[in-house]
Amino acid sequence: MLDYDPANCAVGAAVAILGERPTFLVLREAFNGVRRFADMQRRTGIPRQVLSDRLAHLVQEGLLRKVPYQDSGQRSRHEYRLTAKGLDLYPVLVGLMQWGDTYAAGPDGPPVLLSHRDCGQPVQLQLSCQAGHVLESARDVAPVPGPGARKIA
Amino acid sequence: MLDYDPANCAVGAAVAILGERPTFLVLREAFNGVRRFADMQRRTGIPRQVLSDRLAHLVQEGLLRKVPYQDSGQRSRHEYRLTAKGLDLYPVLVGLMQWGDTYAAGPDGPPVLLSHRDCGQPVQLQLSCQAGHVLESARDVAPVPGPGARKIA
Repeated sequence: MLDYDPANCAVGAAVAILGERPTFLVLREAFNGVRRFADMQRRTGIPRQVLSDRLAHLVQEGLLRKVPYQDSGQRSRHEYRLTAKGLDLYPVLVGLMQWGDTYAAGPDGPPVLLSHRDCGQPVQLQLSCQAGHVLESARDVAPVPGPGARKIA
Repeated sequence: MLDYDPANCAVGAAVAILGERPTFLVLREAFNGVRRFADMQRRTGIPRQVLSDRLAHLVQEGLLRKVPYQDSGQRSRHEYRLTAKGLDLYPVLVGLMQWGDTYAAGPDGPPVLLSHRDCGQPVQLQLSCQAGHVLESARDVAPVPGPGARKIA
């Protein structure tokens, strides 16, 4: 067991920002290219007020930014686009998707596949080390205290 | 925008199982080798009843299994160990940790580093394709309908 102070943990910090189910669904839609409130609402089924709160939270945390648009004959509205900070969450979403495909997919198999835009080959998430070894399991990884580690008081 | 029915989505299915902040904290502790209720309670600060509910949920979903143990002079208790299904969530936790290290770490830097148990080199999560290309960003990935895709009605 790693004897560091868990109050100071990056997973905890990340989950404090993300933490709630609607947040992941909003991010999923954003990664699928959905930018408009009405489309997100229709696709996720999240109640309007909850969706509005989650979007405001993600804007405040700097994962999404609001960009004005105006359809002809309509009033001006905002759409929501991923920032660099939001885009960097992509591996987490892909990890959830891979795990869901393995353990929670229906009998027909995965509803969505990911392919490399350049070459068309399937995309996968991998753990590797800087020496180039591919790691198959959590068992191959040793957590070690980093520069920000604090001993438990 | 990918025109598939989001009701049938692996991210949604995964998040329906995980979905809540305490679940990630419990999994984080499990991956750090924490197995006992009292240790998890102390390290996460999750209220007892919430922790008890989350552990029962993770056992019911097959991510943790209960294993009896008995300390000398004490009554028999259970500890919680990750199953294969639980261990397979590791990339998601590493993804959250990497993101938290980048965007939410304190001034001292990451509290925990991950190293390859065999060679000691730092571990990283990477997106790559089956042709061996390393993908730098979500922008390099195209989502395509899989065998389980359903058109939106």
